[in-house]
Amino acid sequence: MKKEKPGIDLWTTEHYEGVLKLGYKTKETLYSKESDFQKIDVVDTEYLGKVLFNDGLLMTSERDEFVYHEMIVHVPMSVHPNPKKALIIGGGDGGTARELLKYGSLEKVVMVEIDPCVVEACKEHIKVTSCELENPRLELRIEDGVKYVAETNEKFDIVIVDSTEPIGPATPLFGKNFYSGIAACTTDNAVVVSQCESPFLNPEMQEKLLSIKADLFDKVSMYNYSNMTYPAGLWSFSYASKGLDPILDTKPLPPEVLEKLKYYNQGIHKGAFALPQFQKKKVQQYFK
Amino acid sequence: MKKEKPGIDLWTTEHYEGVLKLGYKTKETLYSKESDFQKIDVVDTEYLGKVLFNDGLLMTSERDEFVYHEMIVHVPMSVHPNPKKALIIGGGDGGTARELLKYGSLEKVVMVEIDPCVVEACKEHIKVTSCELENPRLELRIEDGVKYVAETNEKFDIVIVDSTEPIGPATPLFGKNFYSGIAACTTDNAVVVSQCESPFLNPEMQEKLLSIKADLFDKVSMYNYSNMTYPAGLWSFSYASKGLDPILDTKPLPPEVLEKLKYYNQGIHKGAFALPQFQKKKVQQYFK
Repeated sequence: MKKEKPGIDLWTTEHYEGVLKLGYKTKETLYSKESDFQKIDVVDTEYLGKVLFNDGLLMTSERDEFVYHEMIVHVPMSVHPNPKKALIIGGGDGGTARELLKYGSLEKVVMVEIDPCVVEACKEHIKVTSCELENPRLELRIEDGVKYVAETNEKFDIVIVDSTEPIGPATPLFGKNFYSGIAACTTDNAVVVSQCESPFLNPEMQEKLLSIKADLFDKVSMYNYSNMTYPAGLWSFSYASKGLDPILDTKPLPPEVLEKLKYYNQGIHKGAFALPQFQKKKVQQYFK
Repeated sequence: MKKEKPGIDLWTTEHYEGVLKLGYKTKETLYSKESDFQKIDVVDTEYLGKVLFNDGLLMTSERDEFVYHEMIVHVPMSVHPNPKKALIIGGGDGGTARELLKYGSLEKVVMVEIDPCVVEACKEHIKVTSCELENPRLELRIEDGVKYVAETNEKFDIVIVDSTEPIGPATPLFGKNFYSGIAACTTDNAVVVSQCESPFLNPEMQEKLLSIKADLFDKVSMYNYSNMTYPAGLWSFSYASKGLDPILDTKPLPPEVLEKLKYYNQGIHKGAFALPQFQKKKVQQYFK
C-alpha cells in the first residue's frame, strides 16, 4: 500500500472579535495582495473549495455562495413587475451579477466595485462567481459607489448593495448620505436590497440601516438566510421600496430562471421575512 | 493605569471531519469526565457563556440554546390540540423539559436520558437549561431510550427526540427499531419531532430518518432553524404525526407561553417548513 507522504498542516482561520475562530483546512493560497483598500486573499480549502477573504473575513466560498447570491437577487427580482435596469454596489466576486443576468428581460446591469483587486482575484480564481463579468449587458465600473449614486443621471429599478462588513472600504455604504443618493437614482417602484449583518452579532447595525431606509422609502422590511460559512449562522438583508410590498407584490419567477436555482423558491421567499422573536422586537419599529 | 496581567490564551476547539474548526475563547473548564457513554466537558467561554460538549461536539451554549429548545418544543405543542403527556428521549441538559413545562396543561413529562453525567454536568454548571429538572411534573429516568419505548405501557401525545449526532450513544436513535417503539407508545394524533442534522452536512441522514418515519406515520415533514453555534448554519428537525398537519393544524400558543419566547412565533413556525430548493429536492419524496 502506498503511504501518503506527510505534508504541512495548513489552516486558514477567520477571527471574530478575539472570541471566536473559524478554521478551514487549506490546500494552498492562490492569491494574496494588499490593495488600496484592503487585504485580499483567495485560498483553496478542503471543505469549501476556493474561498475569498477581504481583510481576513470570509466573503465567498465556491461551495455555498449560491445561498447569499440567490437571496440577494431573486427576492427583489420577484417583487418588481418589470425591471429593466439594475445597479449593484460592491459585488466584486461577480455572483450577484451572474444571478441578475439570468433574467433575459433585464436590459442593463451596472456594477460599481471600488476595488479592482477583488475583481482580479475572482476572475483568476473563482470562476463560479465571476463567470458573467464579461457579459455585454453588464457595465462594470471600478469606482466609488457613494460617488457614483450621487452623480449618475441613470435611474434604476433594482439596486443591490452587496457589501462587506461595515469596516474598511464598505463603511460609507452603511450611511445616510449613500442611501439618499440611491433614493435619487431609482425609478418609482424601485426595490433596494442590502447586505444587513447578523441579528445575533450586530443588531445595532441592523437598526441603523433600517432607520435610514425608513426615512427615505415607503416600504421597509428585513429578511433572513443561513449559509455554511458566515459566523453565527443567521444573517439578514434589508428591503426597501418606493411602493412594492415584499410579500403582497411577489410573483413566481420565470421557469427558466427558477429551474437553475439551488436555494430560492416561493416558500423560502415568504418564510425568510418571518423573523425570530428577539430580532423582530428590535427591528419591526422601522417596518412600513 | 492598571495593566491587565498576562495569562494563558485558552481556546476550546470543535473539529468537524478534519476540515473545519470552530474555536471559542475560553475562561476555564468547569467539568470534564469520561462517562460510560462519552466524554463530557463544560467550559466557560467569552462568547457563548457556559457550553456543554459531548465527545468534543458542541451541544448547548447558554447564549443561543433558546433557538434549538424553542423550535424542538413549540412546533409540536402548537400543532397538538390538547397534549397531556410528553416524552423526551435524550435532552439531558434540561432545555427541552424547561420549554415543555411552560405549558400548565401538560400533566406529565417523562424524560429518558441514557447518561447521568450529562444531567450532573448541567445541573451543576448550566442552570439556564437545567432549572426545571426538579419540577414535580417531570419524571426523569436514567435509562436507554430505545429500551424504554419498547417496554413502556404509557401512551404519549408528544414525543421529542432530543439527541446528539448519530455517533456514539445516539446511534440507535436514528434507527427503525427505535421509531417502531415510538409509534407503539403514542396516542392518536401524537406528534413526534426529532433532531435531524444539517442539510448542508448530512443530507443522507435526513433522508434515512424521514424514510423511517414515512413507513410508520401518516404525516411526515421537516423544518429548519439556525443558531449561532452548530457548524454550517442551517439545521433541521423532522416532523411526524399519526394525523396532524404541521401547518394546517397549528394554532396560536397560549399568551402566557408566547410572551416568554425569544425565537418562536407563528411566522417562524410556518416559515421554518419552507425548505431551500437543494434540500427540498432530496427530502420531499418522503413527505406525506
